[in-house]
Amino acid sequence: MSGTEQVRELQVELGDRSYPIYIGQGLLGRFGETAEKHGLPKKSPILVVTDEAVGSLYLERATASLAASGYVVASHTVEAGEQAKRLESLGDIVTTALSAGLDRDSTIIALGGGVVGDLAGFAAASYMRGVRFVQAPTTILAHDSSVGGKVAVNHPLAKNIIGAFHQPEFVLYDTETLATLPPREVRSGLAEVAKHGLIRDREFTAWCETNAEKLLAVEPDALSYALREGCAVKAWVVSQDEREGGLRAILNLGHTIGHALEAVAGYGELTHGEAIAIGMCGSARLAERLGFAAEPVYEPTSRLLAKLGLPTSLPSHYDTGAIMEAMMHDKKFRGGQMVFVLPKAIGEVDIVKGIPSEVVKEIVESLK
Amino acid sequence: MSGTEQVRELQVELGDRSYPIYIGQGLLGRFGETAEKHGLPKKSPILVVTDEAVGSLYLERATASLAASGYVVASHTVEAGEQAKRLESLGDIVTTALSAGLDRDSTIIALGGGVVGDLAGFAAASYMRGVRFVQAPTTILAHDSSVGGKVAVNHPLAKNIIGAFHQPEFVLYDTETLATLPPREVRSGLAEVAKHGLIRDREFTAWCETNAEKLLAVEPDALSYALREGCAVKAWVVSQDEREGGLRAILNLGHTIGHALEAVAGYGELTHGEAIAIGMCGSARLAERLGFAAEPVYEPTSRLLAKLGLPTSLPSHYDTGAIMEAMMHDKKFRGGQMVFVLPKAIGEVDIVKGIPSEVVKEIVESLK
Repeated sequence: MSGTEQVRELQVELGDRSYPIYIGQGLLGRFGETAEKHGLPKKSPILVVTDEAVGSLYLERATASLAASGYVVASHTVEAGEQAKRLESLGDIVTTALSAGLDRDSTIIALGGGVVGDLAGFAAASYMRGVRFVQAPTTILAHDSSVGGKVAVNHPLAKNIIGAFHQPEFVLYDTETLATLPPREVRSGLAEVAKHGLIRDREFTAWCETNAEKLLAVEPDALSYALREGCAVKAWVVSQDEREGGLRAILNLGHTIGHALEAVAGYGELTHGEAIAIGMCGSARLAERLGFAAEPVYEPTSRLLAKLGLPTSLPSHYDTGAIMEAMMHDKKFRGGQMVFVLPKAIGEVDIVKGIPSEVVKEIVESLK
Repeated sequence: MSGTEQVRELQVELGDRSYPIYIGQGLLGRFGETAEKHGLPKKSPILVVTDEAVGSLYLERATASLAASGYVVASHTVEAGEQAKRLESLGDIVTTALSAGLDRDSTIIALGGGVVGDLAGFAAASYMRGVRFVQAPTTILAHDSSVGGKVAVNHPLAKNIIGAFHQPEFVLYDTETLATLPPREVRSGLAEVAKHGLIRDREFTAWCETNAEKLLAVEPDALSYALREGCAVKAWVVSQDEREGGLRAILNLGHTIGHALEAVAGYGELTHGEAIAIGMCGSARLAERLGFAAEPVYEPTSRLLAKLGLPTSLPSHYDTGAIMEAMMHDKKFRGGQMVFVLPKAIGEVDIVKGIPSEVVKEIVESLK
């Protein structure tokens, strides 16, 4: 990258599928030069997939930069929100891709949050059995999904159940786009940032608590630092276990309960970050209840999340039976056993198998 | 494999994704022991995907064998025919998979022809981002799709445009199922068998011509030999180039024109084998017209195909403009250039780029 602004860079190490993440102010305006640097072919059209909310603000900026570098660019805009992540949207993207003449040397770019990234990424993974993919995240939450190559769409019965592993060529993270995020989305994104600290970095966890106000105020330096540290934790885990053979599952801290809450709430009522914040509190309680935690984990976890403006308990009208049912459908259960990621300490987690469902039910109740 | 019947075996060499193809009479009745031999987990349910035509004849035989070995087996039946190969069918399979409790250690089995193989294979590739896959082909044509791991569904604008590469654990080819094939499907399947000879095996091509009557009569020994030889050619090519970087494209002999004919005809009017038979005649003519062929190729190609009961010319009502248009949409075109697989001799082909579309148009006209 050239230019005078500071650009933080992080390399995700995955052998011949390694790729860099660029984080900095104004990077969308340098999309074209970055694409050239990474050798995206100019003979084949590029398709930018975005949603209505992000597209109206940033699509022009991204495509103008690419066009200025000599790329032929088409775009496809989906509705904003989780409901765009379905098989029908994939079919619609392919319609646009075919009409725009995308071939095997083409690139599909995701410009947006995690929903757009997952959807466009699955389109890139499956269009002609796989074309190049680039991520341009526009939310804090997407720092998580921009590392690791997990892409998917939802099914009415389960989230992220139809997908692939497909690594991007590079990730272009323009922190300017975060300034326009609604406060609730900022908080939701910070839940995943906090998760990465809780998983593997005690020091960064403490830093997040100290700097919670700056983060909530979307202060560029603090945010840029937090995004890079969050990405670094995830990148380390993914580089150890690209295909989720074992270790990678630690990234699911808070997600077993969290996904169930989202399913029961109906997609969209709880944000993803809110759901996993409650889920992380549940995991901490479970770790203490089972005697797995070597130090108090619930109090510091819930204190950090509360400082980040996130919920730490469950709205009382949620039905425990429905939540348990939703967990049974979750793809993190193998052969009927209940598996959880539990904190041993702040900054250290492990995967614990064979947890009795009655204990889980008790914890879910205790979160109300 | 145990038992007294002769089982022909062929290993597809793909490093840690290598797998065997078993070809023989009555193999569906030994599905359970083969699954055990390959270590398919018994704790996780298996889903057999089939179509109405095949399922009514063979589903019970396959599931009974698996159940006898202690597997929990669910099934999903799609309508017979190419129209089942669409995204909606994938969603339906996932509904069944979730209801049956399939998890990451589960296996999806394709019991049927190429359509079922491609659809169930894409389901296996994308369900939970990939579960185990087994092919049990019940057509001659499927000897082709059972090697190489290319799986996909169609889009209204293009065939096989949404898919993945996903190798099976093993292929179980029960030649008894071929006895119930309609004569037109036998001929269609033999087109792909002949294609494999024309690509790389002059001797096998001659054998096919000599034994055309036995093959058309579905004589078990002849057919079993032909399937193994056909699979062997394809397996050799695929093992050299799993992800279709270059060489693998030679398998598309006859497919550029063939796919266009299928698209123009509407899926189903021409069988796939009929379409590529005409396509291979076109490629042979094109090779002679461009001076690429080192010996006469059109006459022996069309003679072989005619002996196998296949069409060698184009129905005159087909619109040349529409065929050309369909070829432009074909994913085998990179950056707008026309690319064809052309025979240099019988049993030897190569990929030829930069062919002027006017010459292709002339050849299409000459096929009428």
